Amino acid sequence: MTSSSPPQDSLLALRDLTRQFASERQWQAFHTPKNLAMALSVEAAELMEHFQWLVTGAAHELDEQARTGIRHELADVLLYLVQLADQTGVDLHAAALEKIALNAQKYPAAQVQGDARKYDRY
Amino acid sequence: MTSSSPPQDSLLALRDLTRQFASERQWQAFHTPKNLAMALSVEAAELMEHFQWLVTGAAHELDEQARTGIRHELADVLLYLVQLADQTGVDLHAAALEKIALNAQKYPAAQVQGDARKYDRY
Amino acid sequence: MTSSSPPQDSLLALRDLTRQFASERQWQAFHTPKNLAMALSVEAAELMEHFQWLVTGAAHELDEQARTGIRHELADVLLYLVQLADQTGVDLHAAALEKIALNAQKYPAAQVQGDARKYDRY
Amino acid sequence: MTSSSPPQDSLLALRDLTRQFASERQWQAFHTPKNLAMALSVEAAELMEHFQWLVTGAAHELDEQARTGIRHELADVLLYLVQLADQTGVDLHAAALEKIALNAQKYPAAQVQGDARKYDRY
Repeated sequence: MTSSSPPQDSLLALRDLTRQFASERQWQAFHTPKNLAMALSVEAAELMEHFQWLVTGAAHELDEQARTGIRHELADVLLYLVQLADQTGVDLHAAALEKIALNAQKYPAAQVQGDARKYDRY
Repeated sequence: MTSSSPPQDSLLALRDLTRQFASERQWQAFHTPKNLAMALSVEAAELMEHFQWLVTGAAHELDEQARTGIRHELADVLLYLVQLADQTGVDLHAAALEKIALNAQKYPAAQVQGDARKYDRY
Repeated sequence: MTSSSPPQDSLLALRDLTRQFASERQWQAFHTPKNLAMALSVEAAELMEHFQWLVTGAAHELDEQARTGIRHELADVLLYLVQLADQTGVDLHAAALEKIALNAQKYPAAQVQGDARKYDRY
Repeated sequence: MTSSSPPQDSLLALRDLTRQFASERQWQAFHTPKNLAMALSVEAAELMEHFQWLVTGAAHELDEQARTGIRHELADVLLYLVQLADQTGVDLHAAALEKIALNAQKYPAAQVQGDARKYDRY
């Protein structure tokens, strides 16, 4: 890479790294969309487990061990998310922008001030 | 934006957009780390639900309605992930790179060819 | 049933009802342990969703719609749990009694008064 | 208990045992409906983790370690389910019978032979 190369976007860089990682280990056969969705859900639960008996999970409730665990689980969720998006042909960044626009319609700022009820409860 | 501005990285751009979105709706009080971890886990399950009765979730098993649902749920997971990382002070990209390095040690490519058992089963 | 027949235990009765329900619909091929474990996890998340933005989920925080939803989701979790235990040959009642005994050793009452940290954090 | 006492139903017996277990450890303050719903979801994910890289989770795919883990996780899910039902005033057996009746209406046996699509997809 020459000095004039722009830095690669993080989501694309992670997609490329996970492709290489799985390929080097011949894990592609295991990485079906169904299995990746399960693995993602398992990692999300492991992340949540750090918070389950806490009041809100604010910084002062977390010790060093918890903070490290949370950082690793956040990473695991992201890595499976990137792989599942890759396997299903979804551009994660574009999908997130699309969803933010949809959410802005569902939850107009003027209407939902301080109220987090699901939109179908209005 | 002038031609000399570099494009913002997608994960940072989404962090800024979710901050603004929550702020405009005064949702910050709801967005404790504990609540965001729950919301992330709920969205991961909704994503998984699309695959639960399928064989592998390969493209030919998915109709247009399923593909749209999957794209939206992938986005929801990413958006809560970005917010939870923000609330816990974690740089998602750096954390993912750190985790890839740890995983490379746990699962040496030469040892785990085609075998996806958890590392603690070796 | 004659008046002298003892009432059947609820977990066994539900096992028999779910067997009949799946059989009448020829759903046995879908009800692999893997798929049932996914379905159980999805239902557990739908149950959790009712509580995600609440303070504690105490009775006064729940309206009639929420209470009905919670009752149905509790039932869905139980029904998939019974089916997964059936498919894996596990006697749920015996397994629960075994686990209570194990938990009593892990968390001795005298040591853990009012402290819900996981046993491996002691 | 005299010899003429009928055996207690398993779900009620487990409810009583979990009440006593939590009370002896003064865990009632932690056992809010919200926290129990999170714990239930975490255990459901730990159960699912045993199956995530398997083909179907059939008996021949499971070794002794996996079978023991599955039995323990099934028990954990049941124990949190019983406690959450207790805290929300739900009779689990009655709720399950009600849900089976609802499901029989949603998925008429004659219509859904061998098809596990969700009812809202018909």
